[in-house]
Amino acid sequence: MPNIVDVNAIANKYRAQVKAKISLHKKKFHLVGFLSGNYAPSLTYAQYAKSGCDDVGIDFELREIPRLNLEQAILQANEDPEVHGMMVYYPIFGTEQDNYIKDQISYQKDVEGLNVFWAKKLYANDRYLDKERTKKSVLPCTPLAIVKILEETLPYYRTQDHPLEGKVVTIFNRSEVVGRPLAAMLANDGAHVYSFDLDGALEFHGSGISESSISRKDALRRSDAVIGGVPSKNFPKIMGHEINPSALCLNFASIQNFDSSAQHLCRSFVPRVGPVTIAMLVRNAARLYYNFHGSE
Amino acid sequence: MPNIVDVNAIANKYRAQVKAKISLHKKKFHLVGFLSGNYAPSLTYAQYAKSGCDDVGIDFELREIPRLNLEQAILQANEDPEVHGMMVYYPIFGTEQDNYIKDQISYQKDVEGLNVFWAKKLYANDRYLDKERTKKSVLPCTPLAIVKILEETLPYYRTQDHPLEGKVVTIFNRSEVVGRPLAAMLANDGAHVYSFDLDGALEFHGSGISESSISRKDALRRSDAVIGGVPSKNFPKIMGHEINPSALCLNFASIQNFDSSAQHLCRSFVPRVGPVTIAMLVRNAARLYYNFHGSE
Repeated sequence: MPNIVDVNAIANKYRAQVKAKISLHKKKFHLVGFLSGNYAPSLTYAQYAKSGCDDVGIDFELREIPRLNLEQAILQANEDPEVHGMMVYYPIFGTEQDNYIKDQISYQKDVEGLNVFWAKKLYANDRYLDKERTKKSVLPCTPLAIVKILEETLPYYRTQDHPLEGKVVTIFNRSEVVGRPLAAMLANDGAHVYSFDLDGALEFHGSGISESSISRKDALRRSDAVIGGVPSKNFPKIMGHEINPSALCLNFASIQNFDSSAQHLCRSFVPRVGPVTIAMLVRNAARLYYNFHGSE
Repeated sequence: MPNIVDVNAIANKYRAQVKAKISLHKKKFHLVGFLSGNYAPSLTYAQYAKSGCDDVGIDFELREIPRLNLEQAILQANEDPEVHGMMVYYPIFGTEQDNYIKDQISYQKDVEGLNVFWAKKLYANDRYLDKERTKKSVLPCTPLAIVKILEETLPYYRTQDHPLEGKVVTIFNRSEVVGRPLAAMLANDGAHVYSFDLDGALEFHGSGISESSISRKDALRRSDAVIGGVPSKNFPKIMGHEINPSALCLNFASIQNFDSSAQHLCRSFVPRVGPVTIAMLVRNAARLYYNFHGSE
């Protein structure tokens, strides 16, 4: 299909930037991935992370840890000056306990930007750690990857602070890991966002968040970009007749949320975000390095 | 049934202690409950909290806040010197976002002890805030209530640090709000705990947590106390023939986990913990007051 967006080109651009930055440091950034259990997609993600790290000059080490020892292993790595960054492959317990695990990682070593410290920064649209605005906040990799893809792909009038000003985006997914941070980040960049989950819609926009009674039909008709992230076969696939033909459609769910009619009709179709997610992971690593380990 | 434990007697004992402590302070402790939405059990819990607070001399104020304004209201109350404690009635969004909300409350005002700061203390069995051991940690109300009921009801040899030494306890529930903290607290107090959830069993004990292949049958047969907390009709009710007749049985789920044969056979049956939960809530309030607002 001629309208398929080549996300590798976007990923390569960011990886090259990171590589250049990282080459300025004498000591290598040491990133540890913690794997507990044998969930196949985790191992795949770890392999992609390793090859992304190799490419830009980051040392990636995979540590396989029994789940009951994971918390202790994270706390030790928090204290270890030879570990500059960490990531955990979820699910571990597959319960709310995974949320607890997530917050055990020191925010200074949290390359995925999932810690409550970074989440607060994101929802407050607080983009810097210092008053001098030299140390930038870390943002979660997958939503950040989607924002970058939109910024690179949607036709828009670029302004530094609001690159998505005037754009309307519909997102199906409001999880804490992708959908909600993504909605907030797009709104921070100037977009008007319709965010759907099973309970209905919320609107994220410049002046905050509002309850919404908009229908799927109206939201889709108005949208410059449509983002599918529902990992369920029960989700009614988005059809060609529902979308604006000038729209960008992007699927990040493990299950395809777009019917082929929509994939063919839309102006641009983004079938996956993985390579850009990895690029954002190494970009976050470089940012943590600069913010917290810069003198090394 | 003659074997039913009167938890009101236990609750009254702790409330009297709290009342005596609170009467020493000149300024009243001001506790704010945040209610968003109209979930009926939340309103009931708020009414019980108010009457518990009235009884011991705490000002309780219920604030009804639209869910999208709740985070901001919490952040404002964090900064407000006239608010000494807060609690939120869940569910708010009914998604993982509720977890995010939970961690917006300053740990210094978190009367429910659900904040990640207090959770870390609990799992590290770190019972004090200061080296001089004068400022005690806050523990989550419902699991703490259950620990107190067990300590008051199980025959045991009391030692200051390990009041449940040698006792075996089975818990059906490993949620982050009750089951997991409860298992850790009982193990901290010396008990050997079999903790079941849908995925199977873990054992919590003096030297840590282990994976376990124990069956429900063996765990129940060995247990001095059995705790049911499964809010599902699909849970096979615990039968009289499964338990040790000298056992204490306690149900904290919204659905009764014990068949009447078990309720009648067991030595002591605890049908509810609510009044003790409220007693622990005001006890936590007194502790926060002493730790963080003591000079007032």
